[in-house]
Amino acid sequence: MKDMIRIIGIDPGLRRTGWGIIESLGNSLRFVASGTVTSDGDMDLASRLCQLHDGLAEIIHAYQPHEAAVEQTFVNKDAVATLKLGQARGIAMLVPARAGLKVAEYAPNAVKKSVIGVGHGEKQQIHMMLKVLMPKAEFKGNDAADALAIAICHAHNRGAAASRLAMLAG
Amino acid sequence: MKDMIRIIGIDPGLRRTGWGIIESLGNSLRFVASGTVTSDGDMDLASRLCQLHDGLAEIIHAYQPHEAAVEQTFVNKDAVATLKLGQARGIAMLVPARAGLKVAEYAPNAVKKSVIGVGHGEKQQIHMMLKVLMPKAEFKGNDAADALAIAICHAHNRGAAASRLAMLAG
Repeated sequence: MKDMIRIIGIDPGLRRTGWGIIESLGNSLRFVASGTVTSDGDMDLASRLCQLHDGLAEIIHAYQPHEAAVEQTFVNKDAVATLKLGQARGIAMLVPARAGLKVAEYAPNAVKKSVIGVGHGEKQQIHMMLKVLMPKAEFKGNDAADALAIAICHAHNRGAAASRLAMLAG
Repeated sequence: MKDMIRIIGIDPGLRRTGWGIIESLGNSLRFVASGTVTSDGDMDLASRLCQLHDGLAEIIHAYQPHEAAVEQTFVNKDAVATLKLGQARGIAMLVPARAGLKVAEYAPNAVKKSVIGVGHGEKQQIHMMLKVLMPKAEFKGNDAADALAIAICHAHNRGAAASRLAMLAG
């Protein structure tokens, strides 16, 4: 008999960080919750990072996931955007790690492959497949949907295969 | 009579994050301490970010600075390096902000201008001018020296002028 694992997937962004929590038991997946933590664009950067920190810390405290997975993205065309994303991503990895969770990383094409079967595809295909894989899944917007997809990717690849897949797809 | 302000300057980096603490009273500067917080390159990213977090939190707890300043850098040529720097920088801004400090940001040329009088120069010139400005200053390596330079930049530009300068130099 396999143990149930509760996973939080996080899709980091300075303005909007998506999160999605699922449970994985053997081959079956169960939707738990999803949402978006936002930061206030009118505030200074340090305060915005605190908002992301506090929002994620609250979610982890409320849902007590066992493991975390974060998307491994960068924006090639724009150093300023990549730096912003990096700052948000630093917080997205720090918060679960400080709560004692192992934090896995997956490249975007690994996440897509895990959910829609191929390494590329439209947002709409991800939304549709989330509903096929977890009929009770609820998500508002792309950030929460992407976070659920990251959690599913981790459910499929956790253990020894996880780090190998991230490397291959990286 | 002016109040003494204790400032922490932070030069963020995933492998090595420099820190420097000074006191500013009117036009005079006093060296307090400097050093480097390192993360272990053999560990996973989330654990390394925790190491930076815990190291900086310890320094802030030990020295109780009133304000913080962080360098505003990005690496234009390399998205992967920029993302790494962003992740470390997110932690460098989060830790003082969570401790209740205001966190100012300065562009590298503003920092250089503040210490050596012009917006460009060699590391060696910064080291020399630190010794001129604060004869008792001690620093091992470029990261701690840069962090002290950032703290001095903030001492010179804090208050209303600070945000303006960062914008002009950005």
